[in-house]
Amino acid sequence: MTPFKLSDELLAEIEQLIENQKDTQLSSLLEEVHYADVAEIINELNEDEATYIIKLLESDKTSDILTELDEDIREAILGNLSTKEIAGELEELDTDDAADIVAELPKEIVQEVISEIEDKEHAKDIVDLLRYDENSAGGLMAKELVKVRENWNVLTCVKEMRAQAENVTRVHSIYVVDEDDKLMGRLSLKDLLTTSTKTHIKEVYIPKVDAVNVNEKPEEVAKIMSKYDLEAIPVVDEIGRLVGRITIDDIVDVIREEADKDYQMAAGISQDVEADDSIWDLTRARLPWLILGLIGGLGAAAIMGGFEEMIAQHAILFFFTPLIAAMAGNVGVQSSAIIVQGLANDDLKGSISNRLIKEMLLAALNGIILAVILLMFTWWYKDDFYVALAIALSLIVVIVVAGIIGTFIPLFLHKRGIDPAIATGPFITTSNDIFGILIYFWIAKLVLGI
Amino acid sequence: MTPFKLSDELLAEIEQLIENQKDTQLSSLLEEVHYADVAEIINELNEDEATYIIKLLESDKTSDILTELDEDIREAILGNLSTKEIAGELEELDTDDAADIVAELPKEIVQEVISEIEDKEHAKDIVDLLRYDENSAGGLMAKELVKVRENWNVLTCVKEMRAQAENVTRVHSIYVVDEDDKLMGRLSLKDLLTTSTKTHIKEVYIPKVDAVNVNEKPEEVAKIMSKYDLEAIPVVDEIGRLVGRITIDDIVDVIREEADKDYQMAAGISQDVEADDSIWDLTRARLPWLILGLIGGLGAAAIMGGFEEMIAQHAILFFFTPLIAAMAGNVGVQSSAIIVQGLANDDLKGSISNRLIKEMLLAALNGIILAVILLMFTWWYKDDFYVALAIALSLIVVIVVAGIIGTFIPLFLHKRGIDPAIATGPFITTSNDIFGILIYFWIAKLVLGI
Repeated sequence: MTPFKLSDELLAEIEQLIENQKDTQLSSLLEEVHYADVAEIINELNEDEATYIIKLLESDKTSDILTELDEDIREAILGNLSTKEIAGELEELDTDDAADIVAELPKEIVQEVISEIEDKEHAKDIVDLLRYDENSAGGLMAKELVKVRENWNVLTCVKEMRAQAENVTRVHSIYVVDEDDKLMGRLSLKDLLTTSTKTHIKEVYIPKVDAVNVNEKPEEVAKIMSKYDLEAIPVVDEIGRLVGRITIDDIVDVIREEADKDYQMAAGISQDVEADDSIWDLTRARLPWLILGLIGGLGAAAIMGGFEEMIAQHAILFFFTPLIAAMAGNVGVQSSAIIVQGLANDDLKGSISNRLIKEMLLAALNGIILAVILLMFTWWYKDDFYVALAIALSLIVVIVVAGIIGTFIPLFLHKRGIDPAIATGPFITTSNDIFGILIYFWIAKLVLGI
Repeated sequence: MTPFKLSDELLAEIEQLIENQKDTQLSSLLEEVHYADVAEIINELNEDEATYIIKLLESDKTSDILTELDEDIREAILGNLSTKEIAGELEELDTDDAADIVAELPKEIVQEVISEIEDKEHAKDIVDLLRYDENSAGGLMAKELVKVRENWNVLTCVKEMRAQAENVTRVHSIYVVDEDDKLMGRLSLKDLLTTSTKTHIKEVYIPKVDAVNVNEKPEEVAKIMSKYDLEAIPVVDEIGRLVGRITIDDIVDVIREEADKDYQMAAGISQDVEADDSIWDLTRARLPWLILGLIGGLGAAAIMGGFEEMIAQHAILFFFTPLIAAMAGNVGVQSSAIIVQGLANDDLKGSISNRLIKEMLLAALNGIILAVILLMFTWWYKDDFYVALAIALSLIVVIVVAGIIGTFIPLFLHKRGIDPAIATGPFITTSNDIFGILIYFWIAKLVLGI
């Protein structure tokens, strides 16, 4: 299979069918399409057309479609549905997806929507989930899971499990709890099936089970699940009670979002925006970093102004400022990116000072190679050895300093509990531009004895 | 649970135990530790210590440890094991992990290692997998899966499944094939259990099943699985025969690696390196981009040399070149990053020309805001309105051009089938530096009439 590709023809056909209210044809056309792909189609339609499709299809499909839609389109569609219709959609969803949708609803209708949910247990679970911070394991987990009491016997267990499993799409594990709902361990399906029905669970369960706290950060949960190759992990509250479980498909989304965020941060885009967002959103995400760059550039101009008297004697020095600034920026971004990534993947070992020494050696090695190239070129080009030497020597120092700054700042921010990803991209480039130019003119002045 | 943190104390204790050959204590200490964490420990030990631990522990654990180790350490350890010992490790692994390890072995021992594997079926599967390109669905898949023939009845099916399931850690789906092994559909466990044992599979299976071709790129498989929330997907060959399956944990690794690669590319690091790699590896990954930057800087110097006569009259113009270059670079990286990300996530719609127009408007908006700030500052600072105007006007044009270049290049590369991620970072920065400076002096010359 190849992923579904939305064609202009299909879109036109669907718009036509909606306009002519060909409900039967439209339903049978969309029935064949996966809900994630229907969401892709609806993202391209206008509000009325989108609502039309949602009202037309069965709620077991539309509920899944809703979870996959762009947020603004979902909001528009839900605004056109009655509270009863919204409740019907929530009824079909797993509690985690339902809670995410409820969290987006206008405050004044939340209570009414929830009271319209017929399955009271489901409604209660959704309300429970609303309590948790979106940016925590609690905000990620679902209530759907299979759990058994340690003092049940196998027969009771199987009976209860069958009832519970109806609500759970994929049973990854059977969790064992005590009478206070405290997570005690897990049960393998195989053991359950090969044990006499009178045996108590207590005697057969595996007392070792990985779990995360309800307040754990999603990134940490992602790290744990991918490191230990888990497809689901139970979530416990402060006193060890089993309150939910997180499945790997939610973690895949976390990893993707995390990577996108870091990438954008490194590129100087400060909010979670997409290429298709409005110009205004994109400006707000990008302008702050550009203003930072502007301030840095003004700082660089001021520094160069301080060395104005050198222009008369060695104008050529000024021609190399973009080169020096660019190298300082590039080296800084390289060093910081590798540290930020090491921190994110948790594979950074050893002390900060060792790390700085290594980066210094690395930068010095790169710097010397580049400086030799630069020296030969400039000497040949300008036939003034001392000027060429001054520029080349500065380049080495600038690169070493840029490497140290690029290494130190993310490590420092991380120690302070600040996301080090902020220190890549424009931040490092700008500060290194300024330091680089300052060092450059200062060394040139020393070497040339001006 | 929190992820395991390797402490210096624990490491020292383990090294001590190895030195004193306290095998019982060492085994019982490591028995409690997850294999992924033991791998973390071994990554910090020297070759002899690492080999000691691998030889000490049981091969059902060491085989998993081996898959998690850094490549160079694994290579060193395997070099110290006999072909029989290596075969013993492979025996314990799933075919996909085993094939990955075999692919790393020195060519001259591969045949011997494989012939030492006792389970001939397992050996055959590993050899089959070696045929596939690492960078394809075939290189990612495992042979372990549960498949049944459509002409079997339910009873045969259950019997055969039980035998197959022994080799499969997690049964995600039961796949149905015809007598030529062609994938026909899948079977739900529930249907299987509620149907009379004499019924033929043909009558109960679900004929719709998502599958990927064995030559599909891993990134595409990742997209499909995460879009459709699949935990496993069957892999078929060119004529539709079921040849393997890919599980979500492998996809999590693909997504992480992909994100890391794009991030590094944007930061000007050209190979897959980690902060803990050798200085030599790190230099090789970073130097090419720095040389590119150096060449760009020399280009900028040459351009500025061409405007040398302006220095006498308006030295101040030269002070703003780092600012212009930095802004051109920043805007270029912002534009290209958002396009690269849009392409990677497949959420870029509309035509290239619409995209360029939008980016132009966005850049113009940002440019005008920044130019006004710059104009006021420079005017106040130098009290020369025309110079200030020249600088500010150039800034707008430079930003718009940088935005267009940043948008166009990744789209162009993508159309040509080249990974657009290469066009972010140093590449865009360097080309925009040069264009920016050229445009800047050219406009300044026009405005000031020099």
